Amino acid sequence: MTADHAKRRKALLAEIASRKMDCLLVTHPANWFYLTGFSGESGALIVARDRTTLVTDGRFTVQAAQETRGVKIELQQGGLFAAVGSFLKTRGLTRAGYDANQLTVQQLKNLRKSLGRKWRGVEAAGLVERLRMRKDPQELGVMRKTAILAGGVLEGVLKLIRPGMRETEIAAEIEYQMKRHGASGPSFETIVASGARGALPHARPTAKKLRKNELVVLDLGAILGHYCSDMTRTVHLGRASKRVQVWYRSVQTAQQAAVAAVKAGVTCGEVDAAAREVLKKNGLSRYFVHSTGHGLGLEVHEDPRIARDQAVRLEAGNVITIEPGIYMEGVGGIRIEDDVVVRQGSAEVLTRVTRDLIEL
Amino acid sequence: MTADHAKRRKALLAEIASRKMDCLLVTHPANWFYLTGFSGESGALIVARDRTTLVTDGRFTVQAAQETRGVKIELQQGGLFAAVGSFLKTRGLTRAGYDANQLTVQQLKNLRKSLGRKWRGVEAAGLVERLRMRKDPQELGVMRKTAILAGGVLEGVLKLIRPGMRETEIAAEIEYQMKRHGASGPSFETIVASGARGALPHARPTAKKLRKNELVVLDLGAILGHYCSDMTRTVHLGRASKRVQVWYRSVQTAQQAAVAAVKAGVTCGEVDAAAREVLKKNGLSRYFVHSTGHGLGLEVHEDPRIARDQAVRLEAGNVITIEPGIYMEGVGGIRIEDDVVVRQGSAEVLTRVTRDLIEL
Repeated sequence: MTADHAKRRKALLAEIASRKMDCLLVTHPANWFYLTGFSGESGALIVARDRTTLVTDGRFTVQAAQETRGVKIELQQGGLFAAVGSFLKTRGLTRAGYDANQLTVQQLKNLRKSLGRKWRGVEAAGLVERLRMRKDPQELGVMRKTAILAGGVLEGVLKLIRPGMRETEIAAEIEYQMKRHGASGPSFETIVASGARGALPHARPTAKKLRKNELVVLDLGAILGHYCSDMTRTVHLGRASKRVQVWYRSVQTAQQAAVAAVKAGVTCGEVDAAAREVLKKNGLSRYFVHSTGHGLGLEVHEDPRIARDQAVRLEAGNVITIEPGIYMEGVGGIRIEDDVVVRQGSAEVLTRVTRDLIEL
Repeated sequence: MTADHAKRRKALLAEIASRKMDCLLVTHPANWFYLTGFSGESGALIVARDRTTLVTDGRFTVQAAQETRGVKIELQQGGLFAAVGSFLKTRGLTRAGYDANQLTVQQLKNLRKSLGRKWRGVEAAGLVERLRMRKDPQELGVMRKTAILAGGVLEGVLKLIRPGMRETEIAAEIEYQMKRHGASGPSFETIVASGARGALPHARPTAKKLRKNELVVLDLGAILGHYCSDMTRTVHLGRASKRVQVWYRSVQTAQQAAVAAVKAGVTCGEVDAAAREVLKKNGLSRYFVHSTGHGLGLEVHEDPRIARDQAVRLEAGNVITIEPGIYMEGVGGIRIEDDVVVRQGSAEVLTRVTRDLIEL
């Protein structure tokens, strides 16, 4: 089953028409990939009622012709936004929508300069992102595979971990195994944070060696067929103390409570609160310094945000992470993260690795 | 020897003063890393005469305090550019310079809104990039190491390559070995393009298996101590035909001619022409579809561009790639790429792997 790009463009055209725009200028690679299948890094896509056009340079024209259907490829002459502007002017597509988050000040300036007095640009943010939130069965099929791939890699690498190994060695092994299993790469720089370093939620792996009686946070994701997975497990080297066991169980319970809260119709804030509530009951809420999760798809961070007070309602087909964690300075961190699909009455958990404490 | 961030900020302050700005707003991570050593991904650096301030969120404040010296850390409240605006307003730093290439339309809007009628922003592009072009001895020391690391990894992996291996397997092995040798990762997605796929200059590795009598383009780079290397070698599986040998020798001669042209004072266009001239003489210039090279440092593509007619003059301490190549549709590609340091009378070649044709 391949992606139905024409159907996606049609859904977008309805949005474009309802805003009385002539076209939408798509300048973000994940968005043009979603709409056309073009996987190159440079260009601009112009989606208009009667045609979709990709302006790109000589490095990408052959590739674009191979990867897309029903898309006109225009060889870029001169600077990208000067070329786009002259295209819009020639075709009379001057009421062009653009996303102010995805255009630099200089790019907009070049575009306006090229259009001169014809410029009728309209700000229109997040139109493609909103479509991308709701994954279709083809996308869910791929995302199931990338989640399983990451889980399998982690289970394999856990067998190799022992005191004395460096964080960087483990991260290298994880990313290598992902690729050996068919991933095009990691969806972000793999986190391996041992001992006190686990208290930094965004720790990069260092040359630090793992020691006995340390917690180790492993946060990893793979890209497979352009879609991302993202999972975290926290393991303990040796038998965990009572204190660590109690903390771990609190995070596990919080994570499960949030997963249980996921279904179409609930707000993102309610899911976040479900995790936060459990940690609060256990006196740990002040150690939970980030939000509960985020959307996932062609990019590793997408809409919606699963955070405090977020009023956005989940819809069937959304894919989100659920990843509460606690961070104790000087001691370490505990985080458990799964990828889940929002369904009508519940959630489908894509990550298939035990959430019980693993003692190595 | 560690980086002298204070000295770099002082050099920048001279530029800021000469433009009569109160401060420079630095929103590009490679630039703030260069100026302070902060390696986090989110924030904004404000360089002013009497103080340098980093505004960043709760995920990065501890890390920023550990990594920087002489930099005030401000915890971001609310949105980043609203917080920056309110900081500039409070401190009276309203004539703030910014780079229009490194600020989105939305970010500029948020900044202006926060400053209201106090807004006196000034466009100032490329100030830090210009400083970064001229590498100091500490930087050159690191760049020498990352170039040698990449070369050593390639030599090791070449021993494993044989017909039947997949492009993706070889790319995975290269990136794994980089990390095993201390790199934090690849500086870009490793290219392994065999046979006809080599004719796409930006080919990503695929599941295609290598076959006998194919050319294989291997383009790779490592990040070590935050600095990038970037090298390409093209090998042949089995004995190369006369035709391939002749092509290869033309590219090799073109590459060497461009390296020989490198020294302080020549223009980037002259270096590009040196490579182009050789290929022209051999009737191959129309297969050379890109430019000869680019600057290299904290990022894998930096100033200057080594391209046709570029009038920028090379300076001692610039680090650039020299990478002519030819691409024949249906046949394959040949590219040879080294990293070189510009010196007074000549160039220092950092990449230490043979440029002769390797037949595997």
